[in-house]
Amino acid sequence: MLKPSSGISMALIRRLPKYHRYLAELLEKGVAIISSKELSKVMGFTASQIRQDFNTFGEFGQQGYGYNVEVLYREIGRIIGLDQTYRTVIVGAGHLGQAIANYTSLKESKFIPQAMFDINPRMFGIKIGDIEIKDVDELENFVRNHQIDIGIICTPGSNAQEVADRLVKANIKGIWNFAPIDLKIPEQVVLENVHVSESLFALSFLMKNNK
Amino acid sequence: MLKPSSGISMALIRRLPKYHRYLAELLEKGVAIISSKELSKVMGFTASQIRQDFNTFGEFGQQGYGYNVEVLYREIGRIIGLDQTYRTVIVGAGHLGQAIANYTSLKESKFIPQAMFDINPRMFGIKIGDIEIKDVDELENFVRNHQIDIGIICTPGSNAQEVADRLVKANIKGIWNFAPIDLKIPEQVVLENVHVSESLFALSFLMKNNK
Repeated sequence: MLKPSSGISMALIRRLPKYHRYLAELLEKGVAIISSKELSKVMGFTASQIRQDFNTFGEFGQQGYGYNVEVLYREIGRIIGLDQTYRTVIVGAGHLGQAIANYTSLKESKFIPQAMFDINPRMFGIKIGDIEIKDVDELENFVRNHQIDIGIICTPGSNAQEVADRLVKANIKGIWNFAPIDLKIPEQVVLENVHVSESLFALSFLMKNNK
Repeated sequence: MLKPSSGISMALIRRLPKYHRYLAELLEKGVAIISSKELSKVMGFTASQIRQDFNTFGEFGQQGYGYNVEVLYREIGRIIGLDQTYRTVIVGAGHLGQAIANYTSLKESKFIPQAMFDINPRMFGIKIGDIEIKDVDELENFVRNHQIDIGIICTPGSNAQEVADRLVKANIKGIWNFAPIDLKIPEQVVLENVHVSESLFALSFLMKNNK
């Protein structure tokens, strides 16, 4: 049913989670069928954008009948990769690391951290939910021995590149980076950044110029 | 020196914090002058992109002489709005709210939260650093009486729109939203989102398709 995903734009990749979220809400409300026009009203994308996006992946609806919400929700989840689970670790067990630990544990249960790591010996052995904080010296061994897929970096910027290098050496497949730096990572490792300060500064700019 | 900011693309607005960050690093290393070509090598943008970006705001450098790093850093800070301070509150005092409280307190000292708010009575009166957690029932009064500029929403998605409505009613000027929903906000209020789950799902997609 689905075409291969080559040539999909980053813009579309970033719209997919949004579709997934809105379809979940529609499902919860008991909506079974929705047209691109109705979806357009809720989501704020144009109906033609929506039809074009869905066409990229194959045939989700029938002209004039609209889309089956449940099928579409499941298919988009599958496209995103939510039909599989990922083994993750969090490096940096401060407030942000702890927030992300709670968050990823809940999030569809697909990204549950297997351990957290920190340099502060006073944190070793403490549990955040079910997740134990370990000595960062054990990072490489843990990642290798537990076939960890994703390393989540919640350290200060000054430590982040070193952590990334160590994750890469231990054959990590993806890095989710919250540290405020641009990591240098080999091409075969997937890198996704959440640059919180860039968002804050964009807000500042927009407020200053919103006169 | 600077042209008015009308007509600046969101893409450029999002590049500004990145310039600011790299220039800070160069300053720290004692670099006084840098060419667009050298900056291009460090940052990964093309030299012509960089020249074009800076030209949008006026004359930062002299042909053949490169840019004065300190002047450029200060000017870009000013363009971003870091020559002023913002009075903020955080709504939602869980792990994420606490992480953001620590983060914004440090961040150039421009966004220091004046208070945090939560619905959980057991948290009332607790301090995160210097910031007290208060009853969310006091939100509107506090925002009005303390001329709060920015409301930072760290609640679950299910409460976020209500919180946003209350902030708007209390004349907030900007909202920094971490809740996983698209808030409906009047046009005169600036809205900036950090959609963490969309980033996580993009990572998932990229890993699934990185074969």
